[in-house]
Amino acid sequence: MSEIIRADGRTTDQLREITIERGWSQQAEGSALISFGRTKVLCTASFTNGVPRWLTGKGKGWVTAEYSMLPRATNERSDRESVKGRIGGRTHEISRLIGRSIRAVVDTKALGENTIVLDCDVLQADGGTRTAAITGAYVALADALAWGKEHKFIGQRATPLIDSVSAVSVGIIDGEPMLDLAYVEDVRAETDMNVVVTGRGLFVEVQGTAEGAPFDRRELGSLLDLAEGGCRDLAVFQASALNPDAASTAS
Amino acid sequence: MSEIIRADGRTTDQLREITIERGWSQQAEGSALISFGRTKVLCTASFTNGVPRWLTGKGKGWVTAEYSMLPRATNERSDRESVKGRIGGRTHEISRLIGRSIRAVVDTKALGENTIVLDCDVLQADGGTRTAAITGAYVALADALAWGKEHKFIGQRATPLIDSVSAVSVGIIDGEPMLDLAYVEDVRAETDMNVVVTGRGLFVEVQGTAEGAPFDRRELGSLLDLAEGGCRDLAVFQASALNPDAASTAS
Amino acid sequence: MSEIIRADGRTTDQLREITIERGWSQQAEGSALISFGRTKVLCTASFTNGVPRWLTGKGKGWVTAEYSMLPRATNERSDRESVKGRIGGRTHEISRLIGRSIRAVVDTKALGENTIVLDCDVLQADGGTRTAAITGAYVALADALAWGKEHKFIGQRATPLIDSVSAVSVGIIDGEPMLDLAYVEDVRAETDMNVVVTGRGLFVEVQGTAEGAPFDRRELGSLLDLAEGGCRDLAVFQASALNPDAASTAS
Amino acid sequence: MSEIIRADGRTTDQLREITIERGWSQQAEGSALISFGRTKVLCTASFTNGVPRWLTGKGKGWVTAEYSMLPRATNERSDRESVKGRIGGRTHEISRLIGRSIRAVVDTKALGENTIVLDCDVLQADGGTRTAAITGAYVALADALAWGKEHKFIGQRATPLIDSVSAVSVGIIDGEPMLDLAYVEDVRAETDMNVVVTGRGLFVEVQGTAEGAPFDRRELGSLLDLAEGGCRDLAVFQASALNPDAASTAS
Amino acid sequence: MSEIIRADGRTTDQLREITIERGWSQQAEGSALISFGRTKVLCTASFTNGVPRWLTGKGKGWVTAEYSMLPRATNERSDRESVKGRIGGRTHEISRLIGRSIRAVVDTKALGENTIVLDCDVLQADGGTRTAAITGAYVALADALAWGKEHKFIGQRATPLIDSVSAVSVGIIDGEPMLDLAYVEDVRAETDMNVVVTGRGLFVEVQGTAEGAPFDRRELGSLLDLAEGGCRDLAVFQASALNPDAASTAS
Amino acid sequence: MSEIIRADGRTTDQLREITIERGWSQQAEGSALISFGRTKVLCTASFTNGVPRWLTGKGKGWVTAEYSMLPRATNERSDRESVKGRIGGRTHEISRLIGRSIRAVVDTKALGENTIVLDCDVLQADGGTRTAAITGAYVALADALAWGKEHKFIGQRATPLIDSVSAVSVGIIDGEPMLDLAYVEDVRAETDMNVVVTGRGLFVEVQGTAEGAPFDRRELGSLLDLAEGGCRDLAVFQASALNPDAASTAS
Repeated sequence: MSEIIRADGRTTDQLREITIERGWSQQAEGSALISFGRTKVLCTASFTNGVPRWLTGKGKGWVTAEYSMLPRATNERSDRESVKGRIGGRTHEISRLIGRSIRAVVDTKALGENTIVLDCDVLQADGGTRTAAITGAYVALADALAWGKEHKFIGQRATPLIDSVSAVSVGIIDGEPMLDLAYVEDVRAETDMNVVVTGRGLFVEVQGTAEGAPFDRRELGSLLDLAEGGCRDLAVFQASALNPDAASTAS
Repeated sequence: MSEIIRADGRTTDQLREITIERGWSQQAEGSALISFGRTKVLCTASFTNGVPRWLTGKGKGWVTAEYSMLPRATNERSDRESVKGRIGGRTHEISRLIGRSIRAVVDTKALGENTIVLDCDVLQADGGTRTAAITGAYVALADALAWGKEHKFIGQRATPLIDSVSAVSVGIIDGEPMLDLAYVEDVRAETDMNVVVTGRGLFVEVQGTAEGAPFDRRELGSLLDLAEGGCRDLAVFQASALNPDAASTAS
Repeated sequence: MSEIIRADGRTTDQLREITIERGWSQQAEGSALISFGRTKVLCTASFTNGVPRWLTGKGKGWVTAEYSMLPRATNERSDRESVKGRIGGRTHEISRLIGRSIRAVVDTKALGENTIVLDCDVLQADGGTRTAAITGAYVALADALAWGKEHKFIGQRATPLIDSVSAVSVGIIDGEPMLDLAYVEDVRAETDMNVVVTGRGLFVEVQGTAEGAPFDRRELGSLLDLAEGGCRDLAVFQASALNPDAASTAS
Repeated sequence: MSEIIRADGRTTDQLREITIERGWSQQAEGSALISFGRTKVLCTASFTNGVPRWLTGKGKGWVTAEYSMLPRATNERSDRESVKGRIGGRTHEISRLIGRSIRAVVDTKALGENTIVLDCDVLQADGGTRTAAITGAYVALADALAWGKEHKFIGQRATPLIDSVSAVSVGIIDGEPMLDLAYVEDVRAETDMNVVVTGRGLFVEVQGTAEGAPFDRRELGSLLDLAEGGCRDLAVFQASALNPDAASTAS
Repeated sequence: MSEIIRADGRTTDQLREITIERGWSQQAEGSALISFGRTKVLCTASFTNGVPRWLTGKGKGWVTAEYSMLPRATNERSDRESVKGRIGGRTHEISRLIGRSIRAVVDTKALGENTIVLDCDVLQADGGTRTAAITGAYVALADALAWGKEHKFIGQRATPLIDSVSAVSVGIIDGEPMLDLAYVEDVRAETDMNVVVTGRGLFVEVQGTAEGAPFDRRELGSLLDLAEGGCRDLAVFQASALNPDAASTAS
Repeated sequence: MSEIIRADGRTTDQLREITIERGWSQQAEGSALISFGRTKVLCTASFTNGVPRWLTGKGKGWVTAEYSMLPRATNERSDRESVKGRIGGRTHEISRLIGRSIRAVVDTKALGENTIVLDCDVLQADGGTRTAAITGAYVALADALAWGKEHKFIGQRATPLIDSVSAVSVGIIDGEPMLDLAYVEDVRAETDMNVVVTGRGLFVEVQGTAEGAPFDRRELGSLLDLAEGGCRDLAVFQASALNPDAASTAS
């Protein structure tokens, strides 16, 4: 499968260049500036002691996420949602996806009555912003949880982080399944799928959409294979970012 | 698999009672009041000659969908989105899903410069409202297209409808994959998936979410099997509604 | 007066066909799907124990109403108010009218600290939607109050329902006063009046508007006569719906 | 009837002190600062050549009205609707009432393709703000129409103003019908009615509401009698304001 | 400098005619209808015992301001912000300026846990509305504080009012610095400055903007000289309004 | 003056470390990531051929700016304005200030019928975000104008850029005037001033606010001296960023 060479020189099963600048923000409890090629997302995790009123007294924490794009992240400027006075469907959809993905690896009982808000702001967009956001948000989350433990808001024996989680897009272009689509590939894809996978290799989300032509079980299978491979690689990048000393061994 | 008996007496691979009241509205060009058990959705298709300004002159039609729920469709009343002044993320997400699903079976060139708006209003909710909406919207769409042909807005030789489309939910409860979840099942499901399938058996959308525990490839496979079966049955109901004379043979 | 025959074959003092499907909703404490000819309104009454904060501790209940129209209830589709992000003046006006009309027959002290929200959603519109809404809302209200008594939220000796209430539109067309205007009549009316009358025959609301030409006292009198007659008939339909056994005698 | 003396010394059929400061604004084409006792409303009429796009080319003009209240017009400060981001139902209702009332005396064909916007801003409120607004808006309108004629936007032989129009509130307090309720009376009224009457004595709007107890035909009759009398007096005040020289004779 | 004669006959260092109608509102605790020539602003001060929740228990009061313009205050009608559903940047900016200016002369500890809301509504606009608003708001504030003392909400020995405050606009037109610009001057000004000065002659705000050409230190100096003179005069008008008996001596 | 040493080791007349990463965005026509110490603002300039409809055909261009802050730019997370559904007063005020400042150095006739939108998004905030935004926006603007010339949207002989522009904050802390306040200094300042100065040393904006105590002419003078010096330095940094080869000489 991997003999086809793409516009940017990658093979069909190859990720773009991934970089994770952990601790980019000097303000947030956890943060990461992640890039998937030219796609750059600033992820911050804000830790607050306490939970929203409706959750108080239940001994459980709360994790939520918000996604947004700067107006000129894309090739043509788009209006700000704050100026339009309403959040668009796409933004809502992605914010919810990030939230569900991250909550899948958090034990909210172990977190205790604490709140973590993940903000994923796309500074530059070139396809795959939601998958980069999930992958970067996990790193920011891990640091915010460590901060919470250090500051005694989380019990010292608690393990709020059950697993790691990352995400990648896959799609079929001219009949060929491909990993981690750049924008020019994304617009041409017949089928487009975002897959969220835990460090242990289990699925959290599978969102496949036939943009051009409906797809069959075999194609679905090829896409999932590619996504599983991509997320395995992303998990290594996440581990290296969070544990730079061990990274030399990992890579 | 189908020996387990569910709360409402169904086997695991059995749909709830499906009824489609075609032509319910005396105002819309196409309409259907569909029920999946106690879930009832009123689907109307509004046909307008012409397209939004940004599409004018491109020789293509436009199909879009809006989903909404009456405040007391559910067991507890929820506030109207018109009163809150903003549309929630869930509503946005489902409206977009219905729109994509329906567009997958429409040839917008054959439709010509005409617009179809599908309104799916949930009158009563008991799980599976989005899948009932897609399934009913297809019937309303088919009638609105027939209306457009009759009124000469669509060319007499044009075939804007490429295929039929229906949708069903599937999920894993206590480790057991099940078809067409009612609300009480939905809230207990570890994994929840909505699958949109064409009459020819191809996938338009696969949206699987791990609500409780992440899932593996084998579980994903079982769920897809169930969904394919369910949508085959739904396609028969749709055909019967649209062609009542032929229905006696079909059922 | 009644020798003139209208477009739909009615005499000037004749209601359209009235049907009341009591208990249509399996979710709400009280409900009715009412039709005045082709006008169909789904009325639900949601009973909640407790009152809004600002009313707490005053020993009184709260009754309020919301009116809305599905986008394709009418002959041409109109935009959803949730999409527009604001509720229009007409919707506000009618919601307030329904609320006032219903509160006129409720003893809020006897209701106790309970809240009833009446939702009137127009599924199909052909004139007279607000009067159908009031007439149907009364039936839904009666059932919700019965539910509240059964569930001990209302004292067993309390009589929160003082009287019944119904409403009808009247208007002058080509100089002729007519009862219960259908849409085609409504747009032609010089004067249009909505009248809300209790079961005992007293007025709760009289809202007359000169759409075409101002009117005099004599015309006002004729319209009120017609409305009183129409509401007497509607009260019989309401009683039959609420007490089907007694109905055979009533009609 | 008029032997009862009210809190402010009036008889039951007596208006409060009425003043009309015509031409208060140096900016608007027509304006009037009207007071009904302590209720003060600034009414401006803005004349624009041309009509909204949807009316262009139909040879007809457009008249519309907006009502608003300053936050501290009332005894307790209320939040601004601009700050709340939405217009309340009461404001909508009154704006629509003023617009309908004023349109009832305008011949939009004679007006030609011109637009008049009436702004009625309550500077101080003590009951009857909507009726003062209608009464004052008529004066502002008359001047704006004169301005339009002077500036040749309206044909020299056209008579866009068919009649005059004024409005007054009436209500039943302790069983006694009374004219032009001040705020302290308004809150105590069992029945409250706003009546809009033309200079020729015909009804444009009759809006009666049972706040406390439903009312019968006889009570309705008494209220209408009072309102007709009040509006006759208001028409004289309007005429004096518009024609100060003739006024000496009139009063 | 003052030999140049302006369109309205003023010298360059002369204010327009200033009038202050103290106590205009019979509803508010303090009020003033102020005019700077044709610019008229109704300022009300609403006194409430208690503070917003976030300030409770800190022993300090809260003073805030809201500015707005009636739609036809200006030569061309502008849409209401309540209708647009959002407050514009200019309105926000001016409301904040008034609030800061007034807070500069209030000792919030001496005020105690009380809230004062200043509403400045422009009834007619001819330039300088924000400076008239600040100047008038001070008078309304002084009366509301006196009311608070009288009603024992403010301690009898407390002195919440530290100083007086007024504001004036200055600008450079055709190279000439001028005081208190009317609208026709304002639109021609190369540089426009709003200056807020206390009774003791200290600056609270200096907001200079180069509308046409940037300015130098010398020009800035001339403008500040003019503004200081103008505010000295305004302080005398304020004192006269608040202390009419002493006024004869003052003027 | 400069012997006092501040918390971060600076003298009173010293800027924080300034860095300008020109061309940070690969999407925008012009861009700069600017930092004033820990304050980081991403400025992009979007060039579009054409102007808003209301300006069409006047031979002039349009330059506007929008400012925003990421939710976790600050030490405590704040809600997104898109989520709140409205833009706050502070954001409006700063967006307008940036727009005016930039327009002061643009000849819109020379720009021709082109539009430039400047987006200034604060990624990290530590005081002085608006002044950093103006200073960075100028660099982005210069590159966007060069792009416009290169692409022939601007005439080859046109000089749309009249001058350079930069901005800095100054304030009085414990009676001592200081340059370029960091957040900890800003909150303690008695007086706070933002000054916008052109490359030629002329003032575009002077916005001084007494946060604690009103100020006199002498203090105002000291602050302006400091600001003029700071902006001279910033102009050198801008020149170096835009002309890196000449920079070695400049610094």
